[in-house]
Amino acid sequence: MSAALAIGIDLGGTQIRAALIDQHGTILQRIADLTKADAGPDVVTEQIEALVAQVKVGIEPARILGAGVSSPGPLDTKKGIALAVPTLAGFDNFPLRAALAEKLALPVLLENDGIAAALGEWTFGAAKGWENVVYVTVSTGIGGGVIADGRVVRGRSGMAGHVGHMVFMRGGERCACGNRGCFEAYGSGPAFTRRAAVAAAGDGRTSLGKDGRPITAAAVFAAAEAGDDLAGVLVREEAEILGQGFASLLHLYSPDILVMGGGMANQFEVLESGIMASLRACAMPAFRDTPVVRAALGNNSGLIGAASLVFASARGH
Amino acid sequence: MSAALAIGIDLGGTQIRAALIDQHGTILQRIADLTKADAGPDVVTEQIEALVAQVKVGIEPARILGAGVSSPGPLDTKKGIALAVPTLAGFDNFPLRAALAEKLALPVLLENDGIAAALGEWTFGAAKGWENVVYVTVSTGIGGGVIADGRVVRGRSGMAGHVGHMVFMRGGERCACGNRGCFEAYGSGPAFTRRAAVAAAGDGRTSLGKDGRPITAAAVFAAAEAGDDLAGVLVREEAEILGQGFASLLHLYSPDILVMGGGMANQFEVLESGIMASLRACAMPAFRDTPVVRAALGNNSGLIGAASLVFASARGH
Repeated sequence: MSAALAIGIDLGGTQIRAALIDQHGTILQRIADLTKADAGPDVVTEQIEALVAQVKVGIEPARILGAGVSSPGPLDTKKGIALAVPTLAGFDNFPLRAALAEKLALPVLLENDGIAAALGEWTFGAAKGWENVVYVTVSTGIGGGVIADGRVVRGRSGMAGHVGHMVFMRGGERCACGNRGCFEAYGSGPAFTRRAAVAAAGDGRTSLGKDGRPITAAAVFAAAEAGDDLAGVLVREEAEILGQGFASLLHLYSPDILVMGGGMANQFEVLESGIMASLRACAMPAFRDTPVVRAALGNNSGLIGAASLVFASARGH
Repeated sequence: MSAALAIGIDLGGTQIRAALIDQHGTILQRIADLTKADAGPDVVTEQIEALVAQVKVGIEPARILGAGVSSPGPLDTKKGIALAVPTLAGFDNFPLRAALAEKLALPVLLENDGIAAALGEWTFGAAKGWENVVYVTVSTGIGGGVIADGRVVRGRSGMAGHVGHMVFMRGGERCACGNRGCFEAYGSGPAFTRRAAVAAAGDGRTSLGKDGRPITAAAVFAAAEAGDDLAGVLVREEAEILGQGFASLLHLYSPDILVMGGGMANQFEVLESGIMASLRACAMPAFRDTPVVRAALGNNSGLIGAASLVFASARGH
């Protein structure tokens, strides 16, 4: 019989991606669709069904062990329920795992997106072989997942690892979660561009915002590279913030390695020296030598991690 | 043969305590001595040897399975080494486990004090029976330990759970660890009394500091109970800070229960409603129902937790 395969599904508020993945983490087929996020869970699960049907074309059904699903939280992954996903209408106490198992006629495993991406990087990516891993995605928000002592840290209802929502500046900026001063409200992409917009409005010399184009993260990095002083200050500040948050995570979880993913990791080479300087200034001596690396699987960490759940389950883990 | 026993040792910068403990977590004998913290590891381990000899008097040696040691960190508990303990002179890369195993002629297990106390509360105290536990000690510093998915979270070198050293106010007060703005620098006992001293100096109506007595934590709580307005504000602020830090820990570890120990927990009844109001304001909805309770074993959490390591090891865990 041919080698076993798994379906990986990365359900996001913007995009749904499905892939056919082998036991080495290699993507054999991949397809994506824009999420009909306002249409409710019936429509979204039908979208997933259609995508999965396409990646399975031509594959002997018996080779496919099951489907792993990465979804934004909060989920109760032990019960397979989406509790109240802010970016997906109607995903409130919705039995996502059972609904997909019926539609796909496959065993389905459900995981929080931060943990799924951590699993991908741990199983097949930048953290392969380590016992203790913190994965942090820095993007529209900040999320993550943790492996400690060779096991995923799941906690009650599988909700551990919401690393973006530790208080980072007491009483500070409002966060998307409703609280004030979260790490996410300082380190995320939108926080970075918000600071850039405020600073550019008060700076006569910067090129940022002067040409009428929106101040995106990419624009700030490009301006910094072109020698714009204010943009350089903003990039250094972002690196300092990330290093401070990462130092907290070292103290909390004591990983062997910290992996940074998400859109902000596209600028990892630019941020790296600033992140490490900030981290070493904040971390206690016994934690200072922990390496920080860029995710190896790019935006496929979650997709591949979701599939890895299927293989781990088949091995009885 | 009579039932098995373990020695629990709680090594602190001020006091060393040793106890003889049975498999139900009951303390049969207990003795303490002031730590000769400046005298170096040879003298301190001799102190421990003398204390252990006293708690063993009259006990058949074969009944004693081993000794568990709770020590301030950072320790490499996997190697049994004290890395650089700030409060104990000469505990720098000192092989504490091997030194004690030789002196006591017993198997010795070593644990960071926060994790040892978490183990005590999990095995025999307020968190008994739960799969996911965060223990936080609020005292001169803030430390802790975590159980997730029914297992202690140890991380690299066993150093996970330094919950006092997450950045809580970026760029804020200097912390004992050298960093700025740690949770410990805001929530600990000394942080509380430091705020009280500053506030009292600028307040003509408070009784605090007016009678020439030092402004201790106990004095602030007593004044608050007596109706002193400023003291009441200070107590509410402390509860708010603790609730904000605890909310972060819920997001990070997703416990079933959070247990608060340390000297500040002596005022748990006074602080509780303020902690819970603050926690519920900061935590995401899926985390808001997590109970926060006071440690059940008081200042014996670490001593009993250290002994529990011995019983767990004897059972092959």
